[in-house]
Amino acid sequence: MPSYKVPVEDYTFIMNDVLKVQERNDIPGYSDLVPDFTEAVLTELAKVCEDVIAPLNQSGDHEGCTRHEDGSVTTPKGFKEAYDTYMENGWGGLSSDPQYGGQGMPQILSTVKSEILCSANLAFEMYLGLTQGAMASISMAGSDEQKQKYLPNMVSGKWTGTMNLTEAHCGTDLGMMRSKAIPQEDGTYKISGQKIFISAGEHDLAENIIHLVLAKIPGGPEGTKGISLFIVPKYLVNDDGSLGERNGVSCGSIEEKMGIHGNATCVLNYDEATGYLVGEEHDGLRPMFIMMNAARLGVGLQGISLAEAAYQNAAEYARDRLQMRSISGVKAPDKPADPIIVHPDVRRNLMDIRSFVQGSRGVAMWTATKLEESLKHEDEATRQLADDIVGLMTPVIKGVFTDLGFESTVQAQQVFGGHGYITEWGMEQFVRDARIAQIYEGTNGIQALDLVGRKLGRNNGRAIQAYFKLLEDFCKEHDSDDMQEFIEPLKKSVTHLQRASLWLMQNGLANPDNAGAASVAYMHLMGLVAMGHSWVMQVAAAKEMLAAGHNNPKFLENKIITARYYMQRMLPDTRAHLSKIEVGADVMMALAADDF
Amino acid sequence: MPSYKVPVEDYTFIMNDVLKVQERNDIPGYSDLVPDFTEAVLTELAKVCEDVIAPLNQSGDHEGCTRHEDGSVTTPKGFKEAYDTYMENGWGGLSSDPQYGGQGMPQILSTVKSEILCSANLAFEMYLGLTQGAMASISMAGSDEQKQKYLPNMVSGKWTGTMNLTEAHCGTDLGMMRSKAIPQEDGTYKISGQKIFISAGEHDLAENIIHLVLAKIPGGPEGTKGISLFIVPKYLVNDDGSLGERNGVSCGSIEEKMGIHGNATCVLNYDEATGYLVGEEHDGLRPMFIMMNAARLGVGLQGISLAEAAYQNAAEYARDRLQMRSISGVKAPDKPADPIIVHPDVRRNLMDIRSFVQGSRGVAMWTATKLEESLKHEDEATRQLADDIVGLMTPVIKGVFTDLGFESTVQAQQVFGGHGYITEWGMEQFVRDARIAQIYEGTNGIQALDLVGRKLGRNNGRAIQAYFKLLEDFCKEHDSDDMQEFIEPLKKSVTHLQRASLWLMQNGLANPDNAGAASVAYMHLMGLVAMGHSWVMQVAAAKEMLAAGHNNPKFLENKIITARYYMQRMLPDTRAHLSKIEVGADVMMALAADDF
Repeated sequence: MPSYKVPVEDYTFIMNDVLKVQERNDIPGYSDLVPDFTEAVLTELAKVCEDVIAPLNQSGDHEGCTRHEDGSVTTPKGFKEAYDTYMENGWGGLSSDPQYGGQGMPQILSTVKSEILCSANLAFEMYLGLTQGAMASISMAGSDEQKQKYLPNMVSGKWTGTMNLTEAHCGTDLGMMRSKAIPQEDGTYKISGQKIFISAGEHDLAENIIHLVLAKIPGGPEGTKGISLFIVPKYLVNDDGSLGERNGVSCGSIEEKMGIHGNATCVLNYDEATGYLVGEEHDGLRPMFIMMNAARLGVGLQGISLAEAAYQNAAEYARDRLQMRSISGVKAPDKPADPIIVHPDVRRNLMDIRSFVQGSRGVAMWTATKLEESLKHEDEATRQLADDIVGLMTPVIKGVFTDLGFESTVQAQQVFGGHGYITEWGMEQFVRDARIAQIYEGTNGIQALDLVGRKLGRNNGRAIQAYFKLLEDFCKEHDSDDMQEFIEPLKKSVTHLQRASLWLMQNGLANPDNAGAASVAYMHLMGLVAMGHSWVMQVAAAKEMLAAGHNNPKFLENKIITARYYMQRMLPDTRAHLSKIEVGADVMMALAADDF
Repeated sequence: MPSYKVPVEDYTFIMNDVLKVQERNDIPGYSDLVPDFTEAVLTELAKVCEDVIAPLNQSGDHEGCTRHEDGSVTTPKGFKEAYDTYMENGWGGLSSDPQYGGQGMPQILSTVKSEILCSANLAFEMYLGLTQGAMASISMAGSDEQKQKYLPNMVSGKWTGTMNLTEAHCGTDLGMMRSKAIPQEDGTYKISGQKIFISAGEHDLAENIIHLVLAKIPGGPEGTKGISLFIVPKYLVNDDGSLGERNGVSCGSIEEKMGIHGNATCVLNYDEATGYLVGEEHDGLRPMFIMMNAARLGVGLQGISLAEAAYQNAAEYARDRLQMRSISGVKAPDKPADPIIVHPDVRRNLMDIRSFVQGSRGVAMWTATKLEESLKHEDEATRQLADDIVGLMTPVIKGVFTDLGFESTVQAQQVFGGHGYITEWGMEQFVRDARIAQIYEGTNGIQALDLVGRKLGRNNGRAIQAYFKLLEDFCKEHDSDDMQEFIEPLKKSVTHLQRASLWLMQNGLANPDNAGAASVAYMHLMGLVAMGHSWVMQVAAAKEMLAAGHNNPKFLENKIITARYYMQRMLPDTRAHLSKIEVGADVMMALAADDF
């Protein structure tokens, strides 16, 4: 069975040594995040994740979820107990509003928490993650009464939540939605329709499930402008907070799928279910999309987290497995063969993953601070700049980090040779589980279109210009002699991103298909630059700490080695992406649809 | 359920119009392969593959194989009937020696047959493919008596075969093998040991299974030089050809694995089983590896074949699925949304796969002709050159085409969005099935090492120099004005391969880790060049046929469009591979093993 150990030191390094959150008085709560505190929190979280949640990952995959004849669903053995333990220890409300029972810790701590949970058990984490998403929607657009009624029990974990967007014929294209909401005299609505792919849609972990559902009120505008958002509880909630009658929503079936078997992906049938409007009529997409941006950052973390878990197991296997001798001479003469970690190509797989995981983690946590700046900073210009950066980074984190996260799990599996294909070792599960993150919350193609088609052009390119300025200032700041091997590749990659952006400006407006054809390559180019940026931040911090005589120089030296690998082997791919972008759309659009 | 249609036209185009096999009198049997004949054969084969074998692909995956308490194994429903139909129609012996009941057709036809079978149902094909491998070993190294005894029933499909190499602690490193063969007075051997990952190891398709087993005779040389090859039939065969008693080999369990569930991957326990030496004592690895090279070409085809099958389904889905409007303006005003094939990024996925499938198919079939040249050509220099080329192309076809084949299935799955993750659509099965091809018959890392560590340096680089000469002559021959858009990128990519080869010569000997660190990138670089070469061959043929007024210009024009896409979007990646190669091993070897 695969094992997982929380890389506490890497998180505290990035949070406290690189981003130095504890020194920031401009974001509420950050000054509390002193190194001793963050380390203590993560060490405590590690206990429940390593000892309780991770051991259920493989068994949960094998067992899956079971739907019974009455429509009820049983989660895999141990999930309920693990869920209770997690909630009893208060982890559910770590960053939730104290007025609803949360602990009000900065969001960056929950970002780390999510990554750790996903490493331990993605299928399990989704029950928690979807609840966070539903809570975010209610917090953002719900009435005070709705917040009081639903949030406290969701924070405590007594109830969970779901997000209901997709229907069989509409995924990306929500304007084609058919689910209906008929207004009732008492101000409620009767919701009817079928939703598919609903993660955590039905289960036995909590006594109630608060479904957030998109539906159309008849007579409203066509397309996405006619979509409204509703709260549809599995059990109606009485005014005193007790549970009332069962609502008209039921699980029609559990989807059979490639992975995340421990999570119940449900077809939910709504049959005149009672729904409560959230916000205004026909204005359901706005709060849903604000929530979805947060969810996309969360999905990006899943790419990193599964790469981390797969990496740990591959590294251990590579140290243990004896096979062949090193091509540069015997390394373990006392053994019948050398451990396979001596073979350069095994190391290539491991270093690819390692440099991705630590680089992308740096980007995700940096973006988490920007997100908090954008929401909580007192200076409006700072908030706006941060919001612009988050807008750019959201599709990159979701799209690039889940692509590379999936590839990382494949590489980790490859280290195991034939054993990697066998279920028992657990490596193939990481691959199957990681695959979903490239698809849900908007496929990665949609992420790229969001970046290229919406984020780049908005406000006359204000965001991308700000990002370039930030990168240029950063490069200048760190342009010292001993940083050249890191700064030079970063500067080169930034010029590639600038050329690509210019090309898009010049060619994307004249022919939007040029933007579409370039979109995924552009997103990946930006992802490589963003990780390059983070790696230089990490190297700068490591060098500073080494110069100051830090007590764990090995950790810091390994950071520098990994950064060097990234600069030499990974970052130069920006050029290949640029070359693909500059090809344009013509050759992609030439074949007639029927000729494919 | 996914569908599959044999792309007969593409096979006959490559075989008859590009490679013009029917015009070649220098290879026995080729002159029979006139277009009408090859088309008739493939059309006939298509019937059994499309109507009988392909429909069992998904059900076979769901059902898997079952081991019963007595060690017997049942294959999925319908497999036995499909197997009988296939064999009754004589497909098993298509290219086998007529003296054992085969039809003696050129091997290139069986190459095409294998690709088609794998597209239809990989798990099913493996029962046939392993038999071919076992037959090849007996043909090559067996005695006349052994050939007479085993081959006719294997050609007819009455018996199947397996290859037994791997043990739990030794995969790549066969020198660590523990299985023992104790000589008996009657000239037979008693074989004892455990073999794992034995594809088609036990099943109900045929009345006997002829296991080809590697084992060590005590007292022999250490390591791989002490390995011998044995025939170990499931049922002993009497002198009159009838079945005798059950031999001491049994299926201990069926491995639970990521995919190819329809094939029984067995743990086989040998307990003093009677074995018959094939060839000489301690000389088992040589015939096994000659056979394995053929098998590696076969596995390379699996990458192409699953990409083809996944592509067909993704293209159809992209034409059918309505979602969003084209960013360059509404394309289907009469429908509620445009079919997703209007979106450039959906086309990118399809064109990536298409240009890979048709390019790699061209390489595989060209190499199949080289393989026949190397075995059957009357001129020794031609045989040697062909053998050198086959030596280079074997790891490329196995390593690169299975990597890109897997990526293709992932891209095809991505076209389906959320539905791609759902079992019912069958796309996730292609991904799970394709994954094994990167692993078995030597992981792709091992293929790269074979290329860089053995094939390149052998005979002072004779093979790679011959390949460069061949490419240069080819480029000169086709260097006309109207071919510039294809020839120029090819020439550029060849210079990248030359630079990489030179770098390896200069740096690989001084430090072999440099060769190891560069190996996979080098293999992929060569794969891209090889496909570029094939694409120019295909374009040249298409243009010639268009000029001659061919009756299906659309097919030929689409070839040119797809070639153009390959030249503009895929081939330029040679540069990124070169840049990775030139980084060298230092940064890959820097981290201490314990620090990963």
